[in-house]
Amino acid sequence: MKFATLKDGTLDGRLVIVSRDLKRAVAVPSIATSLLDAMQRWDTVQASLADTSARLDIGRANGAFDFDPLASAAPLPRAPQWLDGSAFLNHGRLMEKAFNLPPIPDFETIPVMYQGASDDLLGPHDDVTFPSEADGIDFEGEFGVVCGPVPMEVSPPDALACVRLLVQINDWSLRALGPREMKSGFGFLQAKPSTSFSPVAVTPDELGAGWGDGRVRMRLHVQWNGERFGEPHGGEMNFHFGELIAHAARTRRLTAGTIVGSGTVSNVSRTAGSACIAERRVIEMIDQGSARTGFMRFGDRVRMQARFDDDSDGPFGVVEQRVVRYEA
Amino acid sequence: MKFATLKDGTLDGRLVIVSRDLKRAVAVPSIATSLLDAMQRWDTVQASLADTSARLDIGRANGAFDFDPLASAAPLPRAPQWLDGSAFLNHGRLMEKAFNLPPIPDFETIPVMYQGASDDLLGPHDDVTFPSEADGIDFEGEFGVVCGPVPMEVSPPDALACVRLLVQINDWSLRALGPREMKSGFGFLQAKPSTSFSPVAVTPDELGAGWGDGRVRMRLHVQWNGERFGEPHGGEMNFHFGELIAHAARTRRLTAGTIVGSGTVSNVSRTAGSACIAERRVIEMIDQGSARTGFMRFGDRVRMQARFDDDSDGPFGVVEQRVVRYEA
Repeated sequence: MKFATLKDGTLDGRLVIVSRDLKRAVAVPSIATSLLDAMQRWDTVQASLADTSARLDIGRANGAFDFDPLASAAPLPRAPQWLDGSAFLNHGRLMEKAFNLPPIPDFETIPVMYQGASDDLLGPHDDVTFPSEADGIDFEGEFGVVCGPVPMEVSPPDALACVRLLVQINDWSLRALGPREMKSGFGFLQAKPSTSFSPVAVTPDELGAGWGDGRVRMRLHVQWNGERFGEPHGGEMNFHFGELIAHAARTRRLTAGTIVGSGTVSNVSRTAGSACIAERRVIEMIDQGSARTGFMRFGDRVRMQARFDDDSDGPFGVVEQRVVRYEA
Repeated sequence: MKFATLKDGTLDGRLVIVSRDLKRAVAVPSIATSLLDAMQRWDTVQASLADTSARLDIGRANGAFDFDPLASAAPLPRAPQWLDGSAFLNHGRLMEKAFNLPPIPDFETIPVMYQGASDDLLGPHDDVTFPSEADGIDFEGEFGVVCGPVPMEVSPPDALACVRLLVQINDWSLRALGPREMKSGFGFLQAKPSTSFSPVAVTPDELGAGWGDGRVRMRLHVQWNGERFGEPHGGEMNFHFGELIAHAARTRRLTAGTIVGSGTVSNVSRTAGSACIAERRVIEMIDQGSARTGFMRFGDRVRMQARFDDDSDGPFGVVEQRVVRYEA
């Protein structure tokens, strides 16, 4: 099943089921009012949602209409929590060099993860407003999971069984602000403004072999202003999503609809390119002595789309956004 | 005005107005369904809420009933964001010594602040469950504000004008987990489980001279298992709430209902005692060579109540909670 949320002026938006080919949609207000509502009552509504999804795919859903990703909010415009790991250790190691930070203790055995704001998540084609180019505007291509209710102290295998939906994420970052916040020990705040999401959140079965070992085994293709930037593969994730969820739930329960992110998709092999500018810059520093690529400018666009290993389109649709100057 | 939220099985609970003496309450479903709803539509509902509040205080509100703090959730059981500063620099300096951490850059001029989970906030008398005493269970007595909508890049004076309500907070902390998370640079996650709140959130006018210069100018009286622990004064806050809100909104807007905390109330003078165990422990280390006070044990209770400078009861009511072992 694929779910999207259409903007309707409410905090949670209007839930629609989207066809497998992303072309048609149907609202399901009699089953669930929002995706958050569906996450909270999943065991009750799952069968009805699946039935409607099957009818939509064969052209027999009453009230179906053309799906418009431009009218889409984030699948969960407001989530209970947004917890972002850094599960591709290659990315973390490069960032240590980029920010000239000391090595993180237990980096290879305990996931690092920050708590992000989850009240104002952005849709796949929303403009993204920032106050200043000097803050070092960067994208970060990621995968993520939407959880059902997760009990405190869950084990990684049990945590993996709590995964309900998969999403594709652009975790916007302001690189000039990150190092100071990391050194404070209190973590990211100003450096991590609103995060953006793919038009649809999908059940794991939609990925077939693209979902395995708790990882999204697909390439995330990233383009900046129409030019290829990288297509790192999600299968290289060092901690799987069950391990990330279990880490988050060590001392708290997670309520249904909590989103957990992978951190920037990153591969050891440099032929795959990168899913964020900061990573390309540190590679330039290492290889060429200095960073040549600047961060984003107002008016720039970034496009992200996951693709299967046979290079067919992934299930999440496209995230394509423009950065614009914030005007009070 | 004083607002409380009664538990009714929904995520946002049932809004009630509470009388000035905290003895009577009245539901206001025709005005606002929840406190979050009221925060979002404040300009529209404020006059009606004030009218009902005035009638309640003179015994003329229809449908009024006895207020039961034991039936109360947090005023906002689910808030858009929970952002906790560390605005009492005396506390921060002592914690640096306690955790053997390097000094935070710009500590005296830029607030430090972490993003906490805001989906599962606890009521004033809820038991608090933790997996292990070995995690170093500690309370932290704080004050906080609930904001209306805050635009990105707001100035501190304009931010202060966004304050709608004041609350009293117990920011539970797991001290054995904090230092590792601080060293990771990603900030607190496992070290900061669900936060607890006073039975009522109040408009600033309820404090009279207890609210001034963007600070709660009252003593926060803390008792641990019935014994006095400390009563530090909130007037010593080094950054005021407008400065904390402006810091949070530097690169993001804050949606209505966002809660911003002061961090542990802490005074330079040691006669006031402390509002958290970690602070007492580091003072013992400095004065006596080693920490003598242990952290909390299962079954322990902590009680917090703000009092005016004339030692009369503060407006927030009492937070009194018991820590219990989490059972899966």
